[in-house]
Amino acid sequence: MSKLTTLPVKGFRDIYPEQMSIRQWLFGKMRETANLFGYQECDGPILEPFDLYAAKSGEELVTQQTFSMKDRGGRDVAMRPEFTPTHARMVSARQQELIYPLRWFSIGPCFRYEAPQKGRGREFYQFDVELIGPTSPLSDAEIIAVAIKLLQSVGLTSKDVVVKINSRKLMEFKLSLLNIPKSQTPNVFRLIDKKDKMNEDAWKKYATTIGLSTDQTKNLQKILTDRDVAFESEELTEVFSTLKDMDVSSFAEYDAGVVRGLDYYTGTVFEVRDRQGAFRAVMGGGRYDNLVELFGGQPLSGIGFACGDMVLMELLEEYGKLPKFPRINPTPTRVLVTIFNESTVRDSLRMVNLLRNNNIPAELYPDSKVKLDKQIKYADRKSIPFVIIAGPNELAKQQVVFKKLADGSQQVISESQLVSLLTSVS
Amino acid sequence: MSKLTTLPVKGFRDIYPEQMSIRQWLFGKMRETANLFGYQECDGPILEPFDLYAAKSGEELVTQQTFSMKDRGGRDVAMRPEFTPTHARMVSARQQELIYPLRWFSIGPCFRYEAPQKGRGREFYQFDVELIGPTSPLSDAEIIAVAIKLLQSVGLTSKDVVVKINSRKLMEFKLSLLNIPKSQTPNVFRLIDKKDKMNEDAWKKYATTIGLSTDQTKNLQKILTDRDVAFESEELTEVFSTLKDMDVSSFAEYDAGVVRGLDYYTGTVFEVRDRQGAFRAVMGGGRYDNLVELFGGQPLSGIGFACGDMVLMELLEEYGKLPKFPRINPTPTRVLVTIFNESTVRDSLRMVNLLRNNNIPAELYPDSKVKLDKQIKYADRKSIPFVIIAGPNELAKQQVVFKKLADGSQQVISESQLVSLLTSVS
Repeated sequence: MSKLTTLPVKGFRDIYPEQMSIRQWLFGKMRETANLFGYQECDGPILEPFDLYAAKSGEELVTQQTFSMKDRGGRDVAMRPEFTPTHARMVSARQQELIYPLRWFSIGPCFRYEAPQKGRGREFYQFDVELIGPTSPLSDAEIIAVAIKLLQSVGLTSKDVVVKINSRKLMEFKLSLLNIPKSQTPNVFRLIDKKDKMNEDAWKKYATTIGLSTDQTKNLQKILTDRDVAFESEELTEVFSTLKDMDVSSFAEYDAGVVRGLDYYTGTVFEVRDRQGAFRAVMGGGRYDNLVELFGGQPLSGIGFACGDMVLMELLEEYGKLPKFPRINPTPTRVLVTIFNESTVRDSLRMVNLLRNNNIPAELYPDSKVKLDKQIKYADRKSIPFVIIAGPNELAKQQVVFKKLADGSQQVISESQLVSLLTSVS
Repeated sequence: MSKLTTLPVKGFRDIYPEQMSIRQWLFGKMRETANLFGYQECDGPILEPFDLYAAKSGEELVTQQTFSMKDRGGRDVAMRPEFTPTHARMVSARQQELIYPLRWFSIGPCFRYEAPQKGRGREFYQFDVELIGPTSPLSDAEIIAVAIKLLQSVGLTSKDVVVKINSRKLMEFKLSLLNIPKSQTPNVFRLIDKKDKMNEDAWKKYATTIGLSTDQTKNLQKILTDRDVAFESEELTEVFSTLKDMDVSSFAEYDAGVVRGLDYYTGTVFEVRDRQGAFRAVMGGGRYDNLVELFGGQPLSGIGFACGDMVLMELLEEYGKLPKFPRINPTPTRVLVTIFNESTVRDSLRMVNLLRNNNIPAELYPDSKVKLDKQIKYADRKSIPFVIIAGPNELAKQQVVFKKLADGSQQVISESQLVSLLTSVS
């Protein structure tokens, strides 16, 4: 048989313990932030009916980027590319019994078949936060404040990142003034969304393709750079003033060029960018009015955002904000109990048991045939702080050698002191 | 357009906040247990090369139970049905630089296309623990002790559950005494694994199908009920004596009928069962000698086990061991800041900000148009313990009303006392 590859599938990642520590740190920040605002964690399936995305997520995502298949029962299913449709489905299933305002969040893997590059993989984790029920600008501001609080909690300031905010409703109004018919707005939103991803000529050509006149395109360009447009929207004005009352307005800016790529947005939309513009959007979100209706439920509005782990991690690394864990093999172990020789195995077992029963993470070196210095070297390489050596001489006196690897110091202590010593030393 | 279904795909689960609390509790126990023994968390991709499982996971799992597809680049991929092959791949990729004994664990979703039933879904979470490098019975005992510690940590006793232990090496020896050729052992292991899942006649017929004579089958049945066989294995004897030294031998029993279903096991195998035999195996594991070699690496032995969340949850529910969270909507929120009327929005925002800046999970009712009693009723339904009411009269004196929903009591306090009060009350 030919050898199997040790590589993961293209676009997928192996998360070794040292990367896992950083991921758990980041997920911890996400959970803390969401909890601080009263959001409750939930989760949905990784595999969903394909139709769940076909309806509203946007053509590119669905026809080009899903991992989809027929399951063995002939069902058309897709690995979720995002969380919002799952949340909408789950809300619809219990629409009558749930309590509103409903605050939910999830952290889980999502999948998109895109060209892998720095900050982008085909499997990534998404932190998705949704506030469902209220339609007030206050609730828009709250969701944006959650996003900002997360940025702050990982050490980013308003000098590093910015939340660019717009309103699809406002943009629809502005487009109507250019005599762009309503049926055209989804196409024009897609055009706006692509503006920063194409050069000007290609973008103008794209505008012609979707039926805009040269005049309409020129006027559209004007709108996209006009910062004062925001004040034409009472809602947006209130969102900004609320963000000010929440002490986070230094993070927030109006940007008419932000409409986001998902088809289901209907109101306020926003995205987080690094100020230098070196990265893709770190977060994106918006208000959707019609997602629950797809399932036949009563109209119910929601606003939410999603944050992928990969871009945020890249950004934090670039900005030197990642915590410094021991680079290789961050271990939970506080102490290694060595085995002196075959005759002392039971004594070492007794000690490691005692430590664990007192909630002290402890390892036993699981091989009595390995020499003591190799066992200690193992502890050293793994950055385990303490080592216990229990040889026959010490054991005869109910004592052990307690060694601190940081400075190589060691002391002989009585076995009964072990727990209190390990609880007190750092 | 026709309405979308609110149901998840068959065999998949929606995890609402109340189920999520219990899941997080269980995952917390898994993490604590693994860390107590010095295991480090890692994670791998949910999608893996199909060949990773084709090699060694066993025919049924691969040909009938995988969710597999060609990705958009034509790669044959499968949603992981288990964690061990991923761990073996990840170890192989860094075999030279990793430090042994290597202790890894993962918690993540796995997928198997099986008939959904109580305690079995097509998507489930697996807690997978692996000790790679050492081959000693001491390391076998350690892995079994981790499994037992987890059982204990969720409140199960040796009266509730049992770890049934066997050795494939020992069984191979016993089969050779029955003149069953080595090439036949995988089939016979599958036969043994099916014994409790079929009636006796069907099982005997199956034995004939794979080529056993009536005599061989009769002798095999004898072996399967002989408890003393264990003592013929020096290794197993040491495993049991070590478990005794670790004070967990009341959980452990020899059972010649346990061989486990995965093809890659080569030594000690074990599974956890409820004593009443009402559930499927709660955990299963064993030693594998040849997994890393599949990737062209040097031989490296490992032992591990996996625990699915669904059977364990069912068992805990049946035995009344699940923690009692508020059944509906367990909320992290400590206090709801209400909005008295539109003129006091800024004051309420200031207060909710102050609380969050002091790490007190707080919600603002996000709609100034909703009447106060409805806001308070919301807090009550969500079991939020405290409510703050800041009306114009109180605000004029820099005071607020602080209401405890458990007994309906309320007091007027100065705004500056808020944080200290909320930090002290329970």
